[in-house]
Amino acid sequence: MRAKVKILEVETGRFMVVINEEDAKKAKLHPEDLIKIETAKRTIYGEVVISNMVGPGEIGVTKDILSTYTFSEGEIVNVAPAGTPESVRYVKKKMKGQKLKKVEIEAIVKDIVDRKLRDIEISSFVTSLEINGLDMDEIAWLTVAMAETGDMLDIDRKPIMDVHSIGGVPGNKTNILVVPIVAAAGLTIPKTSSRAITSAAGTADVMEVLAPVTHSLDEIKRIVEKIGACLVWGGALNLAPADDLTIKAERALSIDPRGLMLASIMSKKYAMGSQYVLIDIPTGEGVKVETIEEARSLAKDFIELGKRLGQYVEVAITYGGQPIGHTVGPALEAKEALETIMTGKGPGSLVEKATGLAGILLEMGGVAPAGMGKKMAKEILESGKAYEKLKEIIAEQGGDPNIKPEDIPIGDKTYTFVAQTSGYVTKIDNRAITTIARTAGAPEDKGAGIFLHVKVGEKVKEEDPLFTIHAESEARLDQAIIQARRLEPIRIEGMVLQRIGNL
Amino acid sequence: MRAKVKILEVETGRFMVVINEEDAKKAKLHPEDLIKIETAKRTIYGEVVISNMVGPGEIGVTKDILSTYTFSEGEIVNVAPAGTPESVRYVKKKMKGQKLKKVEIEAIVKDIVDRKLRDIEISSFVTSLEINGLDMDEIAWLTVAMAETGDMLDIDRKPIMDVHSIGGVPGNKTNILVVPIVAAAGLTIPKTSSRAITSAAGTADVMEVLAPVTHSLDEIKRIVEKIGACLVWGGALNLAPADDLTIKAERALSIDPRGLMLASIMSKKYAMGSQYVLIDIPTGEGVKVETIEEARSLAKDFIELGKRLGQYVEVAITYGGQPIGHTVGPALEAKEALETIMTGKGPGSLVEKATGLAGILLEMGGVAPAGMGKKMAKEILESGKAYEKLKEIIAEQGGDPNIKPEDIPIGDKTYTFVAQTSGYVTKIDNRAITTIARTAGAPEDKGAGIFLHVKVGEKVKEEDPLFTIHAESEARLDQAIIQARRLEPIRIEGMVLQRIGNL
Repeated sequence: MRAKVKILEVETGRFMVVINEEDAKKAKLHPEDLIKIETAKRTIYGEVVISNMVGPGEIGVTKDILSTYTFSEGEIVNVAPAGTPESVRYVKKKMKGQKLKKVEIEAIVKDIVDRKLRDIEISSFVTSLEINGLDMDEIAWLTVAMAETGDMLDIDRKPIMDVHSIGGVPGNKTNILVVPIVAAAGLTIPKTSSRAITSAAGTADVMEVLAPVTHSLDEIKRIVEKIGACLVWGGALNLAPADDLTIKAERALSIDPRGLMLASIMSKKYAMGSQYVLIDIPTGEGVKVETIEEARSLAKDFIELGKRLGQYVEVAITYGGQPIGHTVGPALEAKEALETIMTGKGPGSLVEKATGLAGILLEMGGVAPAGMGKKMAKEILESGKAYEKLKEIIAEQGGDPNIKPEDIPIGDKTYTFVAQTSGYVTKIDNRAITTIARTAGAPEDKGAGIFLHVKVGEKVKEEDPLFTIHAESEARLDQAIIQARRLEPIRIEGMVLQRIGNL
Repeated sequence: MRAKVKILEVETGRFMVVINEEDAKKAKLHPEDLIKIETAKRTIYGEVVISNMVGPGEIGVTKDILSTYTFSEGEIVNVAPAGTPESVRYVKKKMKGQKLKKVEIEAIVKDIVDRKLRDIEISSFVTSLEINGLDMDEIAWLTVAMAETGDMLDIDRKPIMDVHSIGGVPGNKTNILVVPIVAAAGLTIPKTSSRAITSAAGTADVMEVLAPVTHSLDEIKRIVEKIGACLVWGGALNLAPADDLTIKAERALSIDPRGLMLASIMSKKYAMGSQYVLIDIPTGEGVKVETIEEARSLAKDFIELGKRLGQYVEVAITYGGQPIGHTVGPALEAKEALETIMTGKGPGSLVEKATGLAGILLEMGGVAPAGMGKKMAKEILESGKAYEKLKEIIAEQGGDPNIKPEDIPIGDKTYTFVAQTSGYVTKIDNRAITTIARTAGAPEDKGAGIFLHVKVGEKVKEEDPLFTIHAESEARLDQAIIQARRLEPIRIEGMVLQRIGNL
């Protein structure tokens, strides 16, 4: 049937298409039926919603669709029911535990991106992967298919470096330092990052305090070809778009099938044209990877996958047992990162980790001799060259390169928890810190977060400050205080941890 | 947050709740977030849609929700985000291949019915069942949980009989005859049926040609206590409501995990209070169960499950290699069933199957001696007593008991396919017949369908009519003709099927 497009100010999270009751009856369409909308140039898929908010002969297109495709009010399109996509058969094949072929994986990924597969089919695919797994062939095919169904970047500067931290450790503003250090040494590093999903701040959220992070691929190409680096939000780009849709299912089920995780990360590096990739796996209690064995096995897979993609991959297993530095939350972290890069001095955990990772990249990229990378990275940081490069990045991305740490607004509703007893800090609970910071408003409220006055191993006296919660509103501060009382994120114990008496 | 209900004329297939953009921002709600709407009496769950078609402080409730719950325009409710339901952990447990506990299965079913689990979680559960299965304990718990989360019927007449055909064979109007025969013998049989999902006519679609089939549980109780039988649409009742939601996922994935299939069928029998249940498993090419071995294994499971539910179950494995009788499609089937029950004579396949099944039920219910059921069923059919009972059912359900076969309107746009050659009918393809009948408009167009002039084994001469397509519109007739030419549903061969010459 022919229909006239009506733009609807409705956001559903899905590709939904609204049809008049009368038209639906005539065309025998029911809610949730998959239909295709054909124009001269393209075919897009969506599911039926029936409502008289559109008239007969009209078809309502929601904002979700318009975020990816352009339609104009009154445009004439063809609407037809869409059958069951062929790729459902391949999802079933994986359900049966069979190995998929390259073309089958490509079909699944393409149909996910085209929205021909929806929550039901994607969830079934993700569940089947969690149960039956993927081998390295399948993971490599999946990675390339995910990259190639999205946009890809071709930067005219080689070699291209990249760094990626597997999430989980709070306060991880490390890459805000790593990228400028690496670029200051003459290497190219077009870094894309994510916003926080379950954490208190993603690298993109932190960077956004210093400069805009939403740029087109063309702008990124221009920036990186000019100054060798960027620190942008990957979500604004159409990189491996299938990933967002599988992640939705993974998050709802709180599963993270390894093959899909590998493909998700590496497809974006592949799309960015990265040739040398450093994967940082923070390891410790309360982060994604809790044991060294697990980290090693994952590292092996990253390296093997890199080989198949023609990328040289190294992995750094880093200490993730407590937050990095003293701050958690976008503005607090941006401030700490900026102070550290400006002065060349900062919390040991942050400086050590940043120069350690940057050093590996300098060696991978061939600008530092083997074993000398970290020293060189430290020199670049301390010399102020890294800060100069960060200023260039901030300027090119449209921020104020002369921003000072004291310019960064921090949530002014605060509450400080103090030690109830003297002793040693034996644990800072990553998950609890994240939960409290999020309750205080992070990452949406950029000024919200936590400042840690102490780190693990330090000695404290009764009444010493332990941590301060920052919030932008009293209401959120109060909620965060309640959470913090319940979770007790910092543990203090005497040197004698347990006393065994007369048994 | 407090909000004022606004009723929206929107049908999405899901429980969706519309929130104003400003409110969503304030409450940090995103599209697809799960929220709860609380009133003094109940809490219901739905997912967020963001749109300015409701104002700030308003919450839009869609027709899907109103089909189950009552809200009035302007009613004040409380709206709050809902966390991840506990039962997701049990879905994950099944993903890992572990046996679920009774309480865990109950939690999953309850959360499905409450819409706290949505497509993603339900699909993951169904996929996990397809891969990892359920044992008989789990199936029994699932069956009872599905029944008890819906309405249940308590009929004051014992014993209560029931009959159910596993779908798949076209033209299966058998139960329109079985139910009146059984009730005419004094037994109680409150039969609920489904509408066609993938077939050309469900029993409810066929019965609806003769009388209304949409009744409340109270009306059904009244009718069955008065005349011992009904033939109603189960979908109008709130029987095992979790089933509709799992079936949606199963259909999209075209899977049918056995444990879920058993629970789906038996939960409805359990909810209807059935004590003696006959399961008809049509077996043959192109139906759900293709081999006798498979049918036997399924039969064993039905009987075992019945034991655990306190039901006595028998199974009839019936011939399903071609359509039952000569007609496929609601009105054509209703006409054939009515003619057969009025005269006591009809197509062999229909009369044999109906009296066979009814006979087993008469023996199960103790009104016919062992081995005498079929004879008794035949006598009841031929004596006109079954017809009298059907008239009572039609009258009680609000139809015209004096309806005659010739009163039933059949699609008057017709096209007859004739034999291209002389020979024997060696095959009538069930799937092809269903596809053609559906293309002609069945089941929505009640008059659409197929009349078969021949059945398997019959001899035909060139130009003899094979089958006639009936449709209500020329357009649909044309489409069905094209389908029929492509599918060639009836195969005619000489007695010599293959000639092997000089090799």
